[in-house]
Amino acid sequence: MSAPHSEQASGRSRGPGRPRQDDISDRVLDAVLALIDADTPVTVNAVVARSGVSRAALYRRWATLPKLVAAALDRGRSPIELPEGGSALETLERIAPQPGDDVLAGYSEARLRQRLRLGLADHAVQREYWESHVSRRRAPVTAELERGRRSGEIRADIDPEIVQDLLAGMYYYQVVVRGEQLQSPEVIARCRAATTLIREAIENRAPRPDRAPHRQR
Amino acid sequence: MSAPHSEQASGRSRGPGRPRQDDISDRVLDAVLALIDADTPVTVNAVVARSGVSRAALYRRWATLPKLVAAALDRGRSPIELPEGGSALETLERIAPQPGDDVLAGYSEARLRQRLRLGLADHAVQREYWESHVSRRRAPVTAELERGRRSGEIRADIDPEIVQDLLAGMYYYQVVVRGEQLQSPEVIARCRAATTLIREAIENRAPRPDRAPHRQR
Repeated sequence: MSAPHSEQASGRSRGPGRPRQDDISDRVLDAVLALIDADTPVTVNAVVARSGVSRAALYRRWATLPKLVAAALDRGRSPIELPEGGSALETLERIAPQPGDDVLAGYSEARLRQRLRLGLADHAVQREYWESHVSRRRAPVTAELERGRRSGEIRADIDPEIVQDLLAGMYYYQVVVRGEQLQSPEVIARCRAATTLIREAIENRAPRPDRAPHRQR
Repeated sequence: MSAPHSEQASGRSRGPGRPRQDDISDRVLDAVLALIDADTPVTVNAVVARSGVSRAALYRRWATLPKLVAAALDRGRSPIELPEGGSALETLERIAPQPGDDVLAGYSEARLRQRLRLGLADHAVQREYWESHVSRRRAPVTAELERGRRSGEIRADIDPEIVQDLLAGMYYYQVVVRGEQLQSPEVIARCRAATTLIREAIENRAPRPDRAPHRQR
């Protein structure tokens, strides 16, 4: 659930002295979030009026309004940091939040619920958020699962995308259907148990006597 | 994802001649859905005005407004029908939708998205929906998984609630995060692959030589 602030999507470039472009992006993203928080429809006109940034400058940074809204909603999310060393399966368990962890990595639960609501109401924003933010954020975990497959640690027939859907889906289900708080120790324990179950499911246990013995008989 | 229309929650009683009480419940639930569809806040006054049913009659059927809203949002959802015969693990695979199935069992995708949105905006409605509808709907599947545990078919350490969170979470993730349509053949295939993975994970393969041999050495 923890996730990177996409530099590409927010139009930031890091350099000495924090260039002016940064300030413009910040002002625009602040304006979008302020409109969302005030339950005001996010239109280009409203963003221009509130941020004082020109329409042209705005479109130079974000080609479409859904791209801009998605970037604003992603603000404050941090990248998944994969631990150094260890097997791919160990990585999977290590990145699962533990009791006491900041499950949302700085992102607030209120913002998460708001983002999901806006996505459900506006399919273009939802798809943009998926394509520019969530799917990119998943890439390092996909790579890690692929590494595990190559090393023979993870079953060759496992699809990393399905593994990630299952794991992330577990967390989303707590928020979206159960109406739980992700910080709750009970929820963290439930999600960790799910992670362990998935880990066991994808582990390559071959050569396993109950799979291969028939050839030897 | 398919799910029962809770008779209890909607206040229906089935008998000959379709008693008048039925019509009253229908009128009220219709009124709530009409307000939701018109993006009008659902208040008791608005429901009374629109349905023509008295405040007292309304409160006799639903003790609170969240209970009423949850009942309205659950309208049209049908129960999970467990197939007769077969093992618990087979049941799990059989109830997973196949290509061509009506995944939402009569419920519409638009209503699903709307329900999730309203739940994310109103925690009381969300919790009510979970307690009066979703958690009840899951009960037969929980019982089926328990049956599998008792018969030794499913691992004794498996928690049926976690299995259901994972499976249902997979479907919700498609809608809520990926922004996909549940009817899409690709989505159905992905969710079926996830179900198979979970089935393999919970299957009791003991006595398995790679688990128990140390004692024998």
